[in-house]
Amino acid sequence: MGNNSIDRFFEDSALGIGEFELIERFFLRSASRARAPESVLLGIGDDAALLRVPVGSDLVAAVDTIVAGRHFLFEADARCIGHRALAVNLSDFAAMGACPAWATLALTLPSADPVWLEGFAAGLWELADRTGVALVGGDTTGGPLTVSLQLLGHVPRGTAVLRSGARPGDLLAVTGTLGDAGAGLWLAQARDAALGCGRAEALPYDRLLADELIRRFEYPEPRVQFGLAARGIATAAMDVSDGLVGDLPKLAAASRVSAKVEVDRLPLSRAMRELASPQQARDWALAAGDDYELLLAFPPDRFGHLAEAAARLGLALTAIGEVGPGSGVTWVLNGQLFDPGTSGYDHFR
Amino acid sequence: MGNNSIDRFFEDSALGIGEFELIERFFLRSASRARAPESVLLGIGDDAALLRVPVGSDLVAAVDTIVAGRHFLFEADARCIGHRALAVNLSDFAAMGACPAWATLALTLPSADPVWLEGFAAGLWELADRTGVALVGGDTTGGPLTVSLQLLGHVPRGTAVLRSGARPGDLLAVTGTLGDAGAGLWLAQARDAALGCGRAEALPYDRLLADELIRRFEYPEPRVQFGLAARGIATAAMDVSDGLVGDLPKLAAASRVSAKVEVDRLPLSRAMRELASPQQARDWALAAGDDYELLLAFPPDRFGHLAEAAARLGLALTAIGEVGPGSGVTWVLNGQLFDPGTSGYDHFR
Repeated sequence: MGNNSIDRFFEDSALGIGEFELIERFFLRSASRARAPESVLLGIGDDAALLRVPVGSDLVAAVDTIVAGRHFLFEADARCIGHRALAVNLSDFAAMGACPAWATLALTLPSADPVWLEGFAAGLWELADRTGVALVGGDTTGGPLTVSLQLLGHVPRGTAVLRSGARPGDLLAVTGTLGDAGAGLWLAQARDAALGCGRAEALPYDRLLADELIRRFEYPEPRVQFGLAARGIATAAMDVSDGLVGDLPKLAAASRVSAKVEVDRLPLSRAMRELASPQQARDWALAAGDDYELLLAFPPDRFGHLAEAAARLGLALTAIGEVGPGSGVTWVLNGQLFDPGTSGYDHFR
Repeated sequence: MGNNSIDRFFEDSALGIGEFELIERFFLRSASRARAPESVLLGIGDDAALLRVPVGSDLVAAVDTIVAGRHFLFEADARCIGHRALAVNLSDFAAMGACPAWATLALTLPSADPVWLEGFAAGLWELADRTGVALVGGDTTGGPLTVSLQLLGHVPRGTAVLRSGARPGDLLAVTGTLGDAGAGLWLAQARDAALGCGRAEALPYDRLLADELIRRFEYPEPRVQFGLAARGIATAAMDVSDGLVGDLPKLAAASRVSAKVEVDRLPLSRAMRELASPQQARDWALAAGDDYELLLAFPPDRFGHLAEAAARLGLALTAIGEVGPGSGVTWVLNGQLFDPGTSGYDHFR
């Protein structure tokens, strides 16, 4: 797609190739591995992409930008950045019960380093192939590393799961376990700092368990299949990207309901329970974010059905509270009101 | 849409507001001024946008990123950046004869400066309102200024104008005048340099004419209405964003045809003819880019019809050459073969 006259970056780059050659080499691929290759009438290479939305479906569009030092560590593997750029958008689709189909990528790069690009493309394609997404448009410019990916897809008319449909009496549940990515980020930073001083062996953590948590931060797994399974059952859903303390109030406000959470029911991974103190684990589970699990509301009698659907995908579904009338979110710990505002975030300052 | 735990930028910003509040304040607006507000089932505020593509139409998607110092000057007005972010994508739509409908914006900002944001939003909304585009998704992060806009829209099935349909015997024509943006960029830089030394009055240019060219660089006008009018008539089209010398070979290659251009027929504006030497004007018209005019191929007997459609929009349409069999582009000046490779670009190094 268009670039312009000040932008002679790629001709001057180490790779010695133009923008289009770069896109061709790393990102142009047949759509044959996508779920519906015939829906891509025209992919990368013309002025715009031409796509066919299934009859009777609405179009779904999400966009997320990730920036070095904010959404991933400066030291992050290119592969992990490629994965994350798509994963965070897929997670938005999961939350709506939408079927992802096509992506466009806007990549701003400080230099056209082929090793970095290979890694980035590998991380992106691995997840794209697994979720049936075709890359149909790309724009590459020179500048500070910024990755903006837009995901497009569809959902049968009237079936999208919004944030606004929760009703008093609904259960609240989350997929998987919470807080792992927050712990993983903390551990990755501690590890990198220790490596920087040549004292990696001094870290007082079980290496395998720590790596498990770091992997949860580096390679978030969007719950797309479960999102599709929850369609028609969940009354409301969103992905937990900012932490439950940040996200649940948004769902409650959009649905004009109140919510009550039993904090000691928040699902924690074995690695988290082994490595973190109960208080630290709770803080991470409540507020750290980046888990990209789903938060759902649904009538209590549908819990068994949804939990079975989750189990078939190797995923836990845990009831953590309930929806009530009114507004606001109440947090309860050991039968007492609990203020989560005093915890969280601080690990990252 | 989702952000995450490292990204505490906006809470710390001068504005003292979070990402969502920022989007709400500057970019959340009813879709009522858009061409088809009822097509926006769900805009900004949920996990993703939910849109309705007209029955019998295909989806069109384009993305373009603009970066400070590459696609606009560091000193550029925020309003001009907001305009450009949408304009470059609208130009891709114009080239396909597609109808723009929805946009998502990924904005990376060094600081949440309300004055800058007001200006940026004003430039974006002015053009969005004029072209019937609704902003349906946004993502704002902290980082070096990068604006990535994705434009979505539709085209009746089978009617999109591609780059690949030109046939031997077709005429080649361009809308408007060429080179103005290149001259405008050069003049803006000369003006800023002179202002920097306090010697603005020393510039040997007619101020009004210079401002006209600078405006062509700062506020490119995408030819959306003409693109729609050319649908069903043009066999191929693309927008001239990289300059004719860069872009015409792409159209010829995609169509598997050759092209011949009479260089002395390239349309030049009065301001250009007054301010630049014939050779400099020719260089800019051939190679500077940023004009965002349309390059079209069509059967010669349709020229009158298209020129009338252009005239109704206050736009010139100029035949500049023709399509032939074979491959490659031939440039002819005063009846002699001409090599444009020796000119161009240098103004910007």
